[in-house]
Amino acid sequence: MTISPFAPARFPTLPPLAGFTMATAEAGVKYKGRTDLWVLRGQPGTQVAGVFTKNKCPGAPVDWSREALSAHTEGPRIVVVNSGTANVFAGQAGRDAVAETAKGAADVFGSDVGSIHLASTGVIGVALEASKLVDQFPNMTLDGDGWEAAARAIMTTDTHPKGATATAKIGNTTVTINGIAKGSGMIAPDMATMLAYVATDAKLSQNVLQDLLDADVGPTFNSITVDSDTSTSDTLLLLASGAAEHSEISDTSDAALTDFRRALHDVLFDLSQQIVKDGEGISKFVTIKVSGAVSDASAHKIGMSVANSPLVKTAIAGEDANWGRIVMAVGKAGEPADRDTLSIWIGPHVLAEGGQLATSYKEEYGASYMKQDEIVIRLDLGLGEGTATVYTCDLTHSYIDINADYRS
Amino acid sequence: MTISPFAPARFPTLPPLAGFTMATAEAGVKYKGRTDLWVLRGQPGTQVAGVFTKNKCPGAPVDWSREALSAHTEGPRIVVVNSGTANVFAGQAGRDAVAETAKGAADVFGSDVGSIHLASTGVIGVALEASKLVDQFPNMTLDGDGWEAAARAIMTTDTHPKGATATAKIGNTTVTINGIAKGSGMIAPDMATMLAYVATDAKLSQNVLQDLLDADVGPTFNSITVDSDTSTSDTLLLLASGAAEHSEISDTSDAALTDFRRALHDVLFDLSQQIVKDGEGISKFVTIKVSGAVSDASAHKIGMSVANSPLVKTAIAGEDANWGRIVMAVGKAGEPADRDTLSIWIGPHVLAEGGQLATSYKEEYGASYMKQDEIVIRLDLGLGEGTATVYTCDLTHSYIDINADYRS
Repeated sequence: MTISPFAPARFPTLPPLAGFTMATAEAGVKYKGRTDLWVLRGQPGTQVAGVFTKNKCPGAPVDWSREALSAHTEGPRIVVVNSGTANVFAGQAGRDAVAETAKGAADVFGSDVGSIHLASTGVIGVALEASKLVDQFPNMTLDGDGWEAAARAIMTTDTHPKGATATAKIGNTTVTINGIAKGSGMIAPDMATMLAYVATDAKLSQNVLQDLLDADVGPTFNSITVDSDTSTSDTLLLLASGAAEHSEISDTSDAALTDFRRALHDVLFDLSQQIVKDGEGISKFVTIKVSGAVSDASAHKIGMSVANSPLVKTAIAGEDANWGRIVMAVGKAGEPADRDTLSIWIGPHVLAEGGQLATSYKEEYGASYMKQDEIVIRLDLGLGEGTATVYTCDLTHSYIDINADYRS
Repeated sequence: MTISPFAPARFPTLPPLAGFTMATAEAGVKYKGRTDLWVLRGQPGTQVAGVFTKNKCPGAPVDWSREALSAHTEGPRIVVVNSGTANVFAGQAGRDAVAETAKGAADVFGSDVGSIHLASTGVIGVALEASKLVDQFPNMTLDGDGWEAAARAIMTTDTHPKGATATAKIGNTTVTINGIAKGSGMIAPDMATMLAYVATDAKLSQNVLQDLLDADVGPTFNSITVDSDTSTSDTLLLLASGAAEHSEISDTSDAALTDFRRALHDVLFDLSQQIVKDGEGISKFVTIKVSGAVSDASAHKIGMSVANSPLVKTAIAGEDANWGRIVMAVGKAGEPADRDTLSIWIGPHVLAEGGQLATSYKEEYGASYMKQDEIVIRLDLGLGEGTATVYTCDLTHSYIDINADYRS
């Protein structure tokens, strides 16, 4: 598989995080000769926040993990993730597999089933063989180092492992945030995307953790799209071990959170960008900045309409500054728009304004600009103050290759 | 260009229609060595009904033709259609081109500008050079035969001309309905699709004509999608010359319309099917039948969510009966759905039921069925009485080829 041209040169250095240990294994769920199982342990007292797919046909692991989020326990929190099957639409066998995996993990890692957070990613419609995971648990020695190995174990069509890290000051204490994510196709998160796990040693109450996550998922994971297809497995968990020295923060409006908020955004943004930049078949990374819409929500919908248009995406793949298709995609969004107040830029060039091609625009500007790997399209609706930025990739032959025979 | 494997063996025989004459010409708007201009004349008294794109950034010809629909006139109705440029998002130059074309047509063909119905199809963002059309008008000799030539003149990425005809009894009089259409990409009609012209010699009032059209556009043109991209130019006109012998019908509930309604549906359905079966890059024609939804509207949205899913479409291209992606697309539609009451069939085979793969299903059933050219996917939501049927095609390498360099 060709590595995405937008892959980072190397996996970032994610330091061990106080309160967390982990391990990976080769469970052989589907793939051979690679790891496909990750277990993360958060020490007793670890708080967990999460957001999940809004797809109406979620996988059994999503149902389970939604409930686990509110489970109260004194034991450690255990996260178990496998790749190879998504264990979605697998009926009673899928639900049994989830229960069996949770029981196995609770027994081996010394917790209770209500504290087990599960996720599976891969083919839909095939039940997980839980015994393959459970059999591995006793062989897994959890320790503090292993974020890159974890990021590799949860990959499916990803061309590289994805990780990010940041530090923040809470009072005089420096805390760390580590995150890993996977995802490449079926990416149009409507809550969170595919699988992402972010952990910190900060000492935060569950409500603060959930508030911080909810506030930042909009401009990060919910603003990327590869193919408009919202996964049945999207899961984003944020775990806080509380191992850091500062006193617990239990009020989201606490000023001590300012720097942490910034660092959390950096990690979430970085991970979500890595996902879209590893979009199936990507040759161009595209940023779409919308302003002048009647509201931020309207701007987001218009941006997504452009980002998901097959005709816009194929034009970009063909290095064609096809403003006509952008106009079409703005107009089909179902949001207030006026052809005659709409302005469009590609990179530094005004492409269209006043309902027509800009008089200053020359085809050679577009032809030259579109050869770049990273394309910025800016739209101003000229109607109001609403803004949004969304991120996508082009639609290429490789997307067809990957998805016309992914199962085989 | 490869002809769609679903193209009819030959263009149907469309008889001359009393009250209508027409001609085509080579105006050289963009294409060389082929016709690109069609003029249709409906005798004085001809009634016209129409539906247009709901895209918020419509072309200048759409704006013009919307107004012309309500223009009252004693003169003949003149329809002027060109291919090569859509004259959309071309600002004042585009509006001027529309006015100039209408004036030229009115002068040459002996009508008034308010009776000229215009449409342009092709590249967006380039103004029509009206003089190219106007210069041809004096050379065009309108006569009664020429439907196939007309269907050819309005083609863009279409691989074959599209026409349909039917007859109906109104009282003791036999009337004829002829229709032509064009369209292949940017097809997700939200009212009508691209360009379609249907004409009859029946004697119907304008309100009856519009009622009949509005009633039938839902299950025909509004139920097809190639790529989810709603064109800025969608136009469907229905013209009635009134040359037939029966007395005028001015009440939509008149029982004498029963057979005409059936025949009109046959023509609209046939044309819309020809468009989706000539979808850009098509290798498989796909019918999606939805039942058991909470309402017909909900069933339609769910059907369209499946029909527009890039992952479903690429799986079909790969001859993969990938029920998991179908489940995903049902769940992402935003409509009421329940994984555990959802049933899915491909052709005669129950694929999934009760929230899992059907126990009777074998992979070889799907493998064998998916090799067919025409695929039927049936979904039952198990929630209510809502039904809908939508039509689409698969997503192939050819779609990328066509659209990554359509402008060049």
